[in-house]
Amino acid sequence: MMIVVMKVGSTTKEISAVIARVKKLGYEAHLSDGEERTIIGIVGDGNIREYAEQFQMMDGVERTMPVSHPYKLASRDFHAANTLVPLNGSKVGDRKIIVMAGPCSVESREQILETAHAVKEAGATALRGGAFKPRTSPYVFQGLGEEGLKYLAEAREQTGLPVVTEVMDSSMVPLVCDYADVLQIGARNMQNYALLHAVGKAQHTVLLKRGMSSTIEELLMAAEYILSHGNTRVMLCERGIRTFERYTRNTFDINAIPVLKERTHLPVIADPSHATGYWQYVEPAAKAAIAAGADGLIVEVHPKPEEAVSDGMQSLTPKRFADMMRAIRRVAEAVDRTA
Amino acid sequence: MMIVVMKVGSTTKEISAVIARVKKLGYEAHLSDGEERTIIGIVGDGNIREYAEQFQMMDGVERTMPVSHPYKLASRDFHAANTLVPLNGSKVGDRKIIVMAGPCSVESREQILETAHAVKEAGATALRGGAFKPRTSPYVFQGLGEEGLKYLAEAREQTGLPVVTEVMDSSMVPLVCDYADVLQIGARNMQNYALLHAVGKAQHTVLLKRGMSSTIEELLMAAEYILSHGNTRVMLCERGIRTFERYTRNTFDINAIPVLKERTHLPVIADPSHATGYWQYVEPAAKAAIAAGADGLIVEVHPKPEEAVSDGMQSLTPKRFADMMRAIRRVAEAVDRTA
Amino acid sequence: MMIVVMKVGSTTKEISAVIARVKKLGYEAHLSDGEERTIIGIVGDGNIREYAEQFQMMDGVERTMPVSHPYKLASRDFHAANTLVPLNGSKVGDRKIIVMAGPCSVESREQILETAHAVKEAGATALRGGAFKPRTSPYVFQGLGEEGLKYLAEAREQTGLPVVTEVMDSSMVPLVCDYADVLQIGARNMQNYALLHAVGKAQHTVLLKRGMSSTIEELLMAAEYILSHGNTRVMLCERGIRTFERYTRNTFDINAIPVLKERTHLPVIADPSHATGYWQYVEPAAKAAIAAGADGLIVEVHPKPEEAVSDGMQSLTPKRFADMMRAIRRVAEAVDRTA
Amino acid sequence: MMIVVMKVGSTTKEISAVIARVKKLGYEAHLSDGEERTIIGIVGDGNIREYAEQFQMMDGVERTMPVSHPYKLASRDFHAANTLVPLNGSKVGDRKIIVMAGPCSVESREQILETAHAVKEAGATALRGGAFKPRTSPYVFQGLGEEGLKYLAEAREQTGLPVVTEVMDSSMVPLVCDYADVLQIGARNMQNYALLHAVGKAQHTVLLKRGMSSTIEELLMAAEYILSHGNTRVMLCERGIRTFERYTRNTFDINAIPVLKERTHLPVIADPSHATGYWQYVEPAAKAAIAAGADGLIVEVHPKPEEAVSDGMQSLTPKRFADMMRAIRRVAEAVDRTA
Repeated sequence: MMIVVMKVGSTTKEISAVIARVKKLGYEAHLSDGEERTIIGIVGDGNIREYAEQFQMMDGVERTMPVSHPYKLASRDFHAANTLVPLNGSKVGDRKIIVMAGPCSVESREQILETAHAVKEAGATALRGGAFKPRTSPYVFQGLGEEGLKYLAEAREQTGLPVVTEVMDSSMVPLVCDYADVLQIGARNMQNYALLHAVGKAQHTVLLKRGMSSTIEELLMAAEYILSHGNTRVMLCERGIRTFERYTRNTFDINAIPVLKERTHLPVIADPSHATGYWQYVEPAAKAAIAAGADGLIVEVHPKPEEAVSDGMQSLTPKRFADMMRAIRRVAEAVDRTA
Repeated sequence: MMIVVMKVGSTTKEISAVIARVKKLGYEAHLSDGEERTIIGIVGDGNIREYAEQFQMMDGVERTMPVSHPYKLASRDFHAANTLVPLNGSKVGDRKIIVMAGPCSVESREQILETAHAVKEAGATALRGGAFKPRTSPYVFQGLGEEGLKYLAEAREQTGLPVVTEVMDSSMVPLVCDYADVLQIGARNMQNYALLHAVGKAQHTVLLKRGMSSTIEELLMAAEYILSHGNTRVMLCERGIRTFERYTRNTFDINAIPVLKERTHLPVIADPSHATGYWQYVEPAAKAAIAAGADGLIVEVHPKPEEAVSDGMQSLTPKRFADMMRAIRRVAEAVDRTA
Repeated sequence: MMIVVMKVGSTTKEISAVIARVKKLGYEAHLSDGEERTIIGIVGDGNIREYAEQFQMMDGVERTMPVSHPYKLASRDFHAANTLVPLNGSKVGDRKIIVMAGPCSVESREQILETAHAVKEAGATALRGGAFKPRTSPYVFQGLGEEGLKYLAEAREQTGLPVVTEVMDSSMVPLVCDYADVLQIGARNMQNYALLHAVGKAQHTVLLKRGMSSTIEELLMAAEYILSHGNTRVMLCERGIRTFERYTRNTFDINAIPVLKERTHLPVIADPSHATGYWQYVEPAAKAAIAAGADGLIVEVHPKPEEAVSDGMQSLTPKRFADMMRAIRRVAEAVDRTA
Repeated sequence: MMIVVMKVGSTTKEISAVIARVKKLGYEAHLSDGEERTIIGIVGDGNIREYAEQFQMMDGVERTMPVSHPYKLASRDFHAANTLVPLNGSKVGDRKIIVMAGPCSVESREQILETAHAVKEAGATALRGGAFKPRTSPYVFQGLGEEGLKYLAEAREQTGLPVVTEVMDSSMVPLVCDYADVLQIGARNMQNYALLHAVGKAQHTVLLKRGMSSTIEELLMAAEYILSHGNTRVMLCERGIRTFERYTRNTFDINAIPVLKERTHLPVIADPSHATGYWQYVEPAAKAAIAAGADGLIVEVHPKPEEAVSDGMQSLTPKRFADMMRAIRRVAEAVDRTA
């Protein structure tokens, strides 16, 4: 449904033209004549929003106001119950809070194996690690590539932890699918539509991160691209947005968690590492995320953060990660969840 | 301390001029000569940051970089232990989480008395309510003024709850002090320096709300104005910041809570009502705030939100407030606090 | 006018309740029944927006959408022709572009007199200078106060240039009116309603700066406070907004100029000094402002920017100011204005 | 160069450890001992910024401050003179302002041919038009694909105007290169590094649009990816950034124009259509861009904006485009350029 508000003083001819176009597009027009101005409700099946600008450009029209939200498959209206995404014997979106943990970048075989064992012992559900790294600068480490994927696979063999890793380009989807259990779409690629189509078609589990300046609605629309391929194993991830505040790397939009839980059936993951940017704020942010209703966390852990090639500042040591796990278990219980 | 970075190729004369000015201002200059360029550290007592722009304008200077933060009295460096602000027999900043609750606006004697009793019964520590309302439009209700203050005082008499209410102008500080236990500085007035001076001098307890687009550093600098009058009964309040996101009224900067707890000794309060803008997100946001380390909450409660003259959308009914109180008590325990 | 969109499946009873409330408030309800849902147009005289939240809280209501904008007296609908504000024999808002120039702070008698003569010679219409300075830190220069006002008055006597200076608190309005020709409301005080009322009542010319995170609509609503006292000598000033960009002090919202010129009859001034923060960008930004349709400029000029106690980085020397004046005259002509 | 600021009270051992790491990485350490604290300047060839976080994590370190900017090949330090990008016999970056114009989307053969002839007649230098469209919703028109490219090529044949069109995925670069003269990287793909590498390798002229929430520095770093392949035919495009303001689609960061002209040798294009979102602001914004120093414009033109499948609101009719061309020619002359 969409509402067309006519200008004060719009003519009968202008109003008729709007109605005629509504009918031509196969919709119905409902007229409401005020003394001041006329409003026209457009009703019918289809994506009337697509024509919002066209109506807005017509003579005599002041503005158009879409009533319904633009996402469908991602909406709770479409699918009321929580979608449960299988992961390592758990179901993400169910009562148990799942935790994906590991280094920002896979740096070496030793580093990823050591981390994998440590996070497993502390209770992680999955192992994260980047083999292909989107970096602001072309002059810094860009990831180990396929070699990194192989180390991740070896870590999975040793620990049983499924592997979460980023895929940055549509052409790389088949390769990354060969190694990864969960394909991560990074914040910079949230609106890389070729990539969204590719992971949708791949029918692989996806962790879709919110763009650093994307609205919640845009995140849901990005999910819609993946869902439109019949791939419903999609987890959404709030990882902080860009604001004017400079004491933290990003601003953790904690509101996004209850908002998403209300609007969509997809599981909601929080990334307290990127959302804060400093390790000392990761545990408080993780606890807040659980208290606000998140279904899971993705957390950066590195055996030696001071030697990490990327994101050291926001990485927990294995010991601090174990402390965090203990802390979030208590909060999880306080909101009738487990972790 | 401040660092002056000279340009590549700056001359000896330019460097000498910088050093001369440093000495003239009563500071010491420490030179570090690289092959590429020279850096000069400025050391000494005083507020060298004040001269940052002047140095930056000198010939041969590329940039200046202050090392220390600009706030002093608000800093944990200055006062390591938590400042405890007395409120209704409790100490804000201590183990117990305090909750201030009540309507956005005092609308009538009945409304505020009914609310006061309800929030007291549910466990609130103090009563909030606006008698003077900052409104975006001059055409809407601006508050009952002194009449509202009188109703608040009557509610205090009946319930024993101390009164938190906003003061909007330096000239009104004496009047509001006559009735209020806590003077609230609203977000729009965070940098109203005449007002900050006035509440500083009043030696009254202050709840200082973060401006909707103010950085954490600016919030601490605003507190500094109050503290500079020897008034240390200052509570800081995170109430959401303005961003591009439109599904919520503001973006709750949950990161600000651990950041503030690290940097300042002052108690940190969260306002989940303004931080979200919709009642259904208030409880999750309140729980998140407690989990992240907040010392207290300020929450809007109205007996009939659908008839509230302002902020009805974000107001809890008394019943929902009681539910929220039960929920936050469980989270408080999970982080070794009480509520 | 306001539109109430009912939920899919709202009941007849819920719809009737909305209509009943509309009538009770003295408005008319226009119903539009779709198969999917019902929309109700609320029509009538008065400020129906004030009740938007109340309607939105009613059972069966999905959302409310105000149709008209909230400002009235500031609107071109209310007053179609440009309001012309007299200044030094010119009319701001007319064909001639006026330029207010001078230092950020009045620092000494010599400094302000020297600057006044210099900017007059280069073609400025008015002299700006701060006697009361809003500073983020309480530890830095806060202005010379009344002494500064006296120096400004002396500069006016010598040069004939009217004086533009900031007033920061309602209690200071009478004093500042004694000396100033134009009262400047600074960005931090754009929503200091006590101050807006005070300058409205004073019937003095006002330069109202946009808050650093205020929307254009909020700027117009702030003007509305002043206009509601019958004081129409109000100039609006775009001075840059706060964004994530860090290479400049603020982001100059150049769009605000044509948007304001379309929506309001009040003159629009641009402040390229604050909008950029660095002197080398002031001239390009000033030229852009004129090209976009601004009616005037306010520019910081200091005889020795490298010794300025505030804003040295963004201050032009008198020579550079004269260059800028020549440059903007050429652009003014290219858009059929003079300067 | 990078500066490491040690904490107050850091130990000799901690300082030595920092120095040891500096040397191990092949850099030199310059020590500056203050009474309060020690600062260490790190000097040498290489990308020391890459290690900023590692140093910041070391014991006794308070913070690290990189001195130099992270971009190299895009910098005026590296290449002082303007890079001139050949386009249709003109050189973008030279005295003449070039204008690329055409519809948002190629919708049909007739539409693009009609537009091409119209914009050519009005004085455009190149034809823009999207064949592959990044759309927020998967449910709306996504572009004609290769068919659209063919129509663009036909329009070029008929008019002689070179073709500017977007490429959205690395895998599509060869196809788009077959038809296009200029590859446009859209705002959503500014940090799609696979795509940046692909267009860098293609040695094709590139129009790189700033991401809607990307800093100027990030834009330069994205250019760096392309330049690192030896492809210097890169034009940068400011197209508006995302802020809190809602009266326009984006906020046109006019400051970015002089900032970019100062920092980089690459030509700077402005997109007043996206930067404002409404056709009536396009001409003022275009004039402002030229006044501020832009080297060119990219403007949306549609024969019938009210029937455009996308971006109709911000599209000029051919007549309005011709008016805009006349207007910008006058402004161009006022800043010693031609158009």
